Amino acid sequence: MNVTASIPSSTDAARWASGAAFIDGAYMPIAEARIPITDWGFRRSDVTYDVVSVWDGAFFRLDDHLKRFRASMESMRLIPAESDEDIRAILHRLVSLAGLREAYVAMDCLRGRPLPGTQYHPKNARPYLSAYAIPYVWLMKPEVIERGAHMIVASTPRIPEASVNARAKNFHWADMTAALFEADEKGADNPILLDAAGNVTEGPGYNVFCITDGIVSTPDRNVLGGITRLSVIELCAELGLPCEVRDVPLEELRNADEILVSSTAGGPIGVSRLDGRILNNDRPGPVTQKLRETYWAKRKSGWHAEPVRYEAA
Amino acid sequence: MNVTASIPSSTDAARWASGAAFIDGAYMPIAEARIPITDWGFRRSDVTYDVVSVWDGAFFRLDDHLKRFRASMESMRLIPAESDEDIRAILHRLVSLAGLREAYVAMDCLRGRPLPGTQYHPKNARPYLSAYAIPYVWLMKPEVIERGAHMIVASTPRIPEASVNARAKNFHWADMTAALFEADEKGADNPILLDAAGNVTEGPGYNVFCITDGIVSTPDRNVLGGITRLSVIELCAELGLPCEVRDVPLEELRNADEILVSSTAGGPIGVSRLDGRILNNDRPGPVTQKLRETYWAKRKSGWHAEPVRYEAA
Repeated sequence: MNVTASIPSSTDAARWASGAAFIDGAYMPIAEARIPITDWGFRRSDVTYDVVSVWDGAFFRLDDHLKRFRASMESMRLIPAESDEDIRAILHRLVSLAGLREAYVAMDCLRGRPLPGTQYHPKNARPYLSAYAIPYVWLMKPEVIERGAHMIVASTPRIPEASVNARAKNFHWADMTAALFEADEKGADNPILLDAAGNVTEGPGYNVFCITDGIVSTPDRNVLGGITRLSVIELCAELGLPCEVRDVPLEELRNADEILVSSTAGGPIGVSRLDGRILNNDRPGPVTQKLRETYWAKRKSGWHAEPVRYEAA
Repeated sequence: MNVTASIPSSTDAARWASGAAFIDGAYMPIAEARIPITDWGFRRSDVTYDVVSVWDGAFFRLDDHLKRFRASMESMRLIPAESDEDIRAILHRLVSLAGLREAYVAMDCLRGRPLPGTQYHPKNARPYLSAYAIPYVWLMKPEVIERGAHMIVASTPRIPEASVNARAKNFHWADMTAALFEADEKGADNPILLDAAGNVTEGPGYNVFCITDGIVSTPDRNVLGGITRLSVIELCAELGLPCEVRDVPLEELRNADEILVSSTAGGPIGVSRLDGRILNNDRPGPVTQKLRETYWAKRKSGWHAEPVRYEAA
């Protein structure tokens, strides 16, 4: 597939500076990036996606993101025309078009809609790729990350993976949105959702880790297989911290010495309050800080980095 | 079906004939109706919607649809600038612009996205209305409706209402989409989804009724409060058929004399096979046919009808 077909011959920095997008074969500034209101990617949330970060001019774990995105697409029978190498080339070009050194780079595969005259069934649609690169998005404001996030345990349970495959990254976020409003009402920054059995799952855009008596734990069910989660697990091994991937009951979260969340939009982020209970003298804990510092130091030194192929304007 | 009423000119007719849309204050032909790829209505499926039908130049139960849409919006804290009377006027205008005598008319309220410089939270977005009118959509092809639908009981359970409010009409359909693919693989037309306890819920775009020994039953939990479902319940009363709104176990569905589904996109529709079991000599059953005929006869006679205000060119 020719991914360069519709590139403009010259780019106007002002048009592209706030972001660049690719939709079904065409490149455009982010402000012009729109999808049909009748697309089942919207009307049935029949879409999967992934998000990779660019820091200091390099993608982080792009191969892992492309691999996960492909697995998500296959599990939902959303197969676009583009190969993984096509998608890689598109993402490089988007960051280059936007001229970003730090970027939030999203890729989606949407269902489209049944072709005219066919049965009203998703098999009769032609899935297609969209993607965009915008300036890096932080999950929380810098001052919140600095003081540690104030979290609540949400009263809305996470959608169970029996109904929606949590490992195929999806936009089924009504439970997350309700939990965000609940957190706000309670004066907190962000929520953590449980499953129906009362085990920890995840929050809107992040996985969750507990640290208790020097042992790190993170849930294995009803969660996205986060790439930053994987990075934290690898860092634990490197730092000699035992890390257990298993069910994490609510009581373990409540009694944890430290809690941290992990996200492409910020890396490991410490929690300083849970439902009003103060942890670590109201700051991110020492193990969390060590993980966070190591994560960013390693990224700056080129860990899992793939330099963006910037093109001359 | 696509009969032209009063439209501006023959040139405009070609632009508007396949549908008319309204997005956040502006009218446009459906082919131009697009939403930003960055809108949380898409990226978090943070949106609610409703669909009303127009038949023979009149809306069906428009007041009921507007009332339900408002309740859905309020439950999701999605409040657009438009009042119910504004929305009513927009829908009339859309059907008039498209020149349709039979129409499928959708209305959505999308979250938008947080305003620049604010916290990355849904409270900081400005929700807005979109709507469109297109030629009437049938849930199934006419020949399928005539012979009776072939259904399966899906292996994917419906998203529980504890996580996502089923009564606020939403696009959280990954379970429905998986079930549609399963039905197709098994050579059936459509699926019926159960809850985690094994009770009947609904299918993609329809409620479900069983008829056993002259008694009609339909689920009360984990389902949309369908307007066509309400109409069938009212018709049962009119026809002297006892109708029970309660949990419907899978065994009741399996052993039912008749099964029917109800949808704005087709009214009551009979089922002739369930997981390969033949019902009623492989046709829609007699009670179903009576309900179906009564439904359409009453609609033709103006039942709950609000005539479209077609505007002169």
